[in-house]
Amino acid sequence: MSGSTLGTLFCVTTFGESHGPAIGCVVDGCPPGLELSEADIQPDLDRRRPGTSRHVTQRKEEDKVEILSGVFEGCTTGTPIALLIRNTDQRSKDYANLLDTFRPGHADYTYHHKYGRRDPRGGGRASARLTAPAVGAAAIAKKWLRERCGTTFFGHLAAIGDIAIPFEGWEHVANNPFFAANASDIARIDELRKQGDSCGARVDVVARGVPVGIGEPLYDKLDADIAHAMMGINAVKGVEIGAGFGSIAQRGSAHGDELTPAGFASNNAGGVLGGIATGQDITVSLAIKPTSSIRTPRRSIDRAGQPTMVETFGRHDPCVGIRATPIAEAMLALVVMDHVLRHRAQCVDVRLPVTPIPAQAP
Amino acid sequence: MSGSTLGTLFCVTTFGESHGPAIGCVVDGCPPGLELSEADIQPDLDRRRPGTSRHVTQRKEEDKVEILSGVFEGCTTGTPIALLIRNTDQRSKDYANLLDTFRPGHADYTYHHKYGRRDPRGGGRASARLTAPAVGAAAIAKKWLRERCGTTFFGHLAAIGDIAIPFEGWEHVANNPFFAANASDIARIDELRKQGDSCGARVDVVARGVPVGIGEPLYDKLDADIAHAMMGINAVKGVEIGAGFGSIAQRGSAHGDELTPAGFASNNAGGVLGGIATGQDITVSLAIKPTSSIRTPRRSIDRAGQPTMVETFGRHDPCVGIRATPIAEAMLALVVMDHVLRHRAQCVDVRLPVTPIPAQAP
Amino acid sequence: MSGSTLGTLFCVTTFGESHGPAIGCVVDGCPPGLELSEADIQPDLDRRRPGTSRHVTQRKEEDKVEILSGVFEGCTTGTPIALLIRNTDQRSKDYANLLDTFRPGHADYTYHHKYGRRDPRGGGRASARLTAPAVGAAAIAKKWLRERCGTTFFGHLAAIGDIAIPFEGWEHVANNPFFAANASDIARIDELRKQGDSCGARVDVVARGVPVGIGEPLYDKLDADIAHAMMGINAVKGVEIGAGFGSIAQRGSAHGDELTPAGFASNNAGGVLGGIATGQDITVSLAIKPTSSIRTPRRSIDRAGQPTMVETFGRHDPCVGIRATPIAEAMLALVVMDHVLRHRAQCVDVRLPVTPIPAQAP
Amino acid sequence: MSGSTLGTLFCVTTFGESHGPAIGCVVDGCPPGLELSEADIQPDLDRRRPGTSRHVTQRKEEDKVEILSGVFEGCTTGTPIALLIRNTDQRSKDYANLLDTFRPGHADYTYHHKYGRRDPRGGGRASARLTAPAVGAAAIAKKWLRERCGTTFFGHLAAIGDIAIPFEGWEHVANNPFFAANASDIARIDELRKQGDSCGARVDVVARGVPVGIGEPLYDKLDADIAHAMMGINAVKGVEIGAGFGSIAQRGSAHGDELTPAGFASNNAGGVLGGIATGQDITVSLAIKPTSSIRTPRRSIDRAGQPTMVETFGRHDPCVGIRATPIAEAMLALVVMDHVLRHRAQCVDVRLPVTPIPAQAP
Repeated sequence: MSGSTLGTLFCVTTFGESHGPAIGCVVDGCPPGLELSEADIQPDLDRRRPGTSRHVTQRKEEDKVEILSGVFEGCTTGTPIALLIRNTDQRSKDYANLLDTFRPGHADYTYHHKYGRRDPRGGGRASARLTAPAVGAAAIAKKWLRERCGTTFFGHLAAIGDIAIPFEGWEHVANNPFFAANASDIARIDELRKQGDSCGARVDVVARGVPVGIGEPLYDKLDADIAHAMMGINAVKGVEIGAGFGSIAQRGSAHGDELTPAGFASNNAGGVLGGIATGQDITVSLAIKPTSSIRTPRRSIDRAGQPTMVETFGRHDPCVGIRATPIAEAMLALVVMDHVLRHRAQCVDVRLPVTPIPAQAP
Repeated sequence: MSGSTLGTLFCVTTFGESHGPAIGCVVDGCPPGLELSEADIQPDLDRRRPGTSRHVTQRKEEDKVEILSGVFEGCTTGTPIALLIRNTDQRSKDYANLLDTFRPGHADYTYHHKYGRRDPRGGGRASARLTAPAVGAAAIAKKWLRERCGTTFFGHLAAIGDIAIPFEGWEHVANNPFFAANASDIARIDELRKQGDSCGARVDVVARGVPVGIGEPLYDKLDADIAHAMMGINAVKGVEIGAGFGSIAQRGSAHGDELTPAGFASNNAGGVLGGIATGQDITVSLAIKPTSSIRTPRRSIDRAGQPTMVETFGRHDPCVGIRATPIAEAMLALVVMDHVLRHRAQCVDVRLPVTPIPAQAP
Repeated sequence: MSGSTLGTLFCVTTFGESHGPAIGCVVDGCPPGLELSEADIQPDLDRRRPGTSRHVTQRKEEDKVEILSGVFEGCTTGTPIALLIRNTDQRSKDYANLLDTFRPGHADYTYHHKYGRRDPRGGGRASARLTAPAVGAAAIAKKWLRERCGTTFFGHLAAIGDIAIPFEGWEHVANNPFFAANASDIARIDELRKQGDSCGARVDVVARGVPVGIGEPLYDKLDADIAHAMMGINAVKGVEIGAGFGSIAQRGSAHGDELTPAGFASNNAGGVLGGIATGQDITVSLAIKPTSSIRTPRRSIDRAGQPTMVETFGRHDPCVGIRATPIAEAMLALVVMDHVLRHRAQCVDVRLPVTPIPAQAP
Repeated sequence: MSGSTLGTLFCVTTFGESHGPAIGCVVDGCPPGLELSEADIQPDLDRRRPGTSRHVTQRKEEDKVEILSGVFEGCTTGTPIALLIRNTDQRSKDYANLLDTFRPGHADYTYHHKYGRRDPRGGGRASARLTAPAVGAAAIAKKWLRERCGTTFFGHLAAIGDIAIPFEGWEHVANNPFFAANASDIARIDELRKQGDSCGARVDVVARGVPVGIGEPLYDKLDADIAHAMMGINAVKGVEIGAGFGSIAQRGSAHGDELTPAGFASNNAGGVLGGIATGQDITVSLAIKPTSSIRTPRRSIDRAGQPTMVETFGRHDPCVGIRATPIAEAMLALVVMDHVLRHRAQCVDVRLPVTPIPAQAP
């Protein structure tokens, strides 16, 4: 397969550039019989959308989604569902000067050398705008998983720059523009933003109520596919499952999660053992680099290889990580959905005499 | 595709369990005309093999590889190359008691609930032994990449438990059984080993001389596919590219690598921008959890859901991370090889008037 | 992969139903640097389009294609090319009565039992209208193949019902609405049409100037992939390559094409040996069943399993085979394009001391 | 995917050349819990094997299969099943003279131009011997389908050269070495064989008890995937489903199969409508070309492009079609198995209030 398709059975194929006529995707393999309309998808797109607060880029885009196929009389039919989002705010004159130079930290240099040409308007295909179709596709997956498996997805901003944002409760996440699970650090985050430079972020996401047994041992492990999906999000430089890098300093007697009749006693595994879901929460943490679109002039070269200075103007996020939480939830949902379908293809008739233990210790 | 195949064009399909008749793989898509014999593959298998020192598991396995196909008169023909490794040291009585219980931190519980049954001997398919076929396949990729692209692969153990092992020079790696790039910490590592518990590890790997332009923007980014391959290695819980989790606290003015006519001025990107190789070193870091096979008794349940205690006997690694360096190098090589082939399918006729800048600043 | 994607490297993913908002496709993997605009695609869509003569269905659809992505400043960029065709002529009231019954020879019964529901309007996804996106995608492939490889595609209607239409010359094909390579049988075809029943057809297609060596031995042989693509066209019931079913009665001494320094002496192979192109014309012949949408009342059952009679009204082709020639050419082009990319991924650096013999004997 | 893998979820990856150390395959995606041993596979391999009568090639091969993985305590575990068949009868000196020339009708010329080199011993990878692994893999699929779905597979030789072999009853097939469903034409077939030239054949195969609803509308239609699998068999030049090429001359009122509460009234569709199974018999017919390995000297060229004469010695089938029946059954079984798994991934929870009509009219 060429690279623009994600998933083996719940397949999302995206298209589009930031300032072309439209972006969108085709979702192939969705089970039939799911009630679906644009109203199920639009809220997730709105949640991802920039311009929803002063903290994120000032582009005013409606990201209005249209379902082109695969739905009849309000239900999925099992045929491909195409989602279309027209690009309505294409002020591409802002970017006209970028065709000849390569912005440090951007994909300009690599696209140029791969393809011999590139669409420079708004970052072209490398724009974070291209996460919108995946978020739309994931809204379908999330609805199906919630209704059929009771699986839900959460996420929050866990750090921004050098400020840790401790988890206090999921109820806070919807009450601030940063997806912080915390009411007390908002002012500090705001302060950081005013300093004019960009900064990185950590985002934590969770899948709860994942069916035990989904995943494939080698090589398409559930955690491997999660890592693939997460590292594929713009600006992500690191992915952890469960104890993650913290497991380096752990001893085996501390790391291995004990089992009791009431459930697992801990979750260092992050819900995955041997590439297969335990039924516990799947916990994932992402490192997101500081956005490279900053107003400080920086050294670069032009297409002829000559030295030049690059300064980025236009509308940009001071911290791309602020927008990343719904995207990371979406990618996690797409991977879980795909593996639920894969699992039932092979193992739907496996019947065990004893039910799994509860995912969570009481 | 079912899960046991890695890669899109350089495809490695593995098979086997730790204590079955044999393990191996089929490598499909290798270009023709590469000189190849078992002598090109065996050294990498020997380097991965346990039992090469007192620090790793005491299994005495020869891991002798046989090429079954795809080579004629000492050259690859372009047809599938099958590699076979017979299992010769199958003391599976050691493991007979494990079928009824689930070892904490092991895949026993998840395999049982996925498939309704499992091969418990030596961990079955979840054994780290199953990394051997990938290492064998990667030996082919590494040879081709070295000869045709000048690409090479390095790796070293960067931390074990809470002991950091600073990089001093690649020349040290071959001189100790830990793959440490350092001559001064060996005694401390040895000390740790004697404490009887297991511990985690960090492994760093590098691909040097990677062709600029390989990778796919969405979703099969080069770094996404690397994350997939690395997180799929047994016991890996985290993956970083370039600055990784360190990029969270970086500012944009520090993170974005400036370009000069003499090359990039830094490599926070870890050799990948927008999912495509810059030509710089690809730098990857892995977190490996402590092995779960420890002799301390631990709480678990049996197949009927009743509480029990589990103690692991048999031959096991005190730190599985000690063996991971050649495995991580191998997985990196497989991903790079696949993307070189993918790239030339689409872009082999792209001709740029100016050559890429040097990968490394002087 | 779910089923709506064709190709391994030149990947076409379609979406849409006959009477939904739109149909279209995403073409992923197209090489960069091809000059492309809607004007390169629209003529092939127009050629396929019904309503172009009194001989085919009276639907008046414009099939106006819009390129949504993957093209910048008139050239392909290497990123996915999305094609959108709005459905403008949706007189679906004609079809309202069809939801409860299953038309003989149609996909109504099977869609219903597969998915539990279906979009009955105009045949939904099973409509021949869904060949339009593939024809659009193939226009891109054909342009690239013509410019880079000199490969061209031809086709003609070789029989309709029991009337054979002998090949007289390619110049006739554009001069009649049946794609007949013959000027003398048009009146007889017209006569057949007036008889009120539908009939089957044979269509022959040719790829000329195919690069020697494209194809994969097992299992994705060039001829196997051609058979897959052709049998996937609506109403096709048989596929032949080269001598086809005629080879049953041939002797080996007659069938095997001799080679001379001036070229092959014959082409019973139809341009493929061992799944790999010889460089000769690839010759394919298709059997197309009579359309099942006829006005004669026929026995069927309803969704409750009770007997009923079904009569088809609305706009339908008397012979769907009349429209099939450009579709078959398109499918052949998509397969050849995919295999050219696959071939150069693995074998682009194969250099032979002697050039291939001419494709055609003089 | 590279070309040596067949199937999307029940994936068969083959390897091997006719005279290399071994041939075999990896079967990935088999459901767990199927009782399986070599004794379930060997009979199908023996049935395919040459040397079972004087009518077929005189190679004496045991084709003894070994299961290397994926089976524990006599049951499949859900992990990959590797099958190994050692090549024991490698009289490759017979073929030594073939490296420099291209046999008419063989894959010599195309392999040479694709890969720049080839294994000429016994036809290398292009040998019909490479159908053995697929037959082995299909034995697994057939057992699972028989036990879980009640699906069975039949086939017979329907014509050889210009001799039609009318179907008289399935009970005859096992009683002659040609797989003829007929007791009266054996002498005539024997006569043909003595004429010293090779000839083509027609083989008919049937899948009975196929679950209604399997298949994917676009592009991986059930009939498209069958055509792919069948055209991929060595020497096949044509494939028909149901009425096949006979449908060209049919009228719509004759072709479309009427439905009654007692079942379909006919089966021109061959069990597939819109790419999805109706539940009726799937009926497939193949055209197999005469083998090209004949003793008559024929014109060819050598690797330098100079004219030469080629004469084939060694052990060869007078009619390769005589061995094709079990191979065609196997390929059909692999496709059906794959689509059963694909179908249940997406649609296992579809529940219809009314059960499908009987597959067969009384």
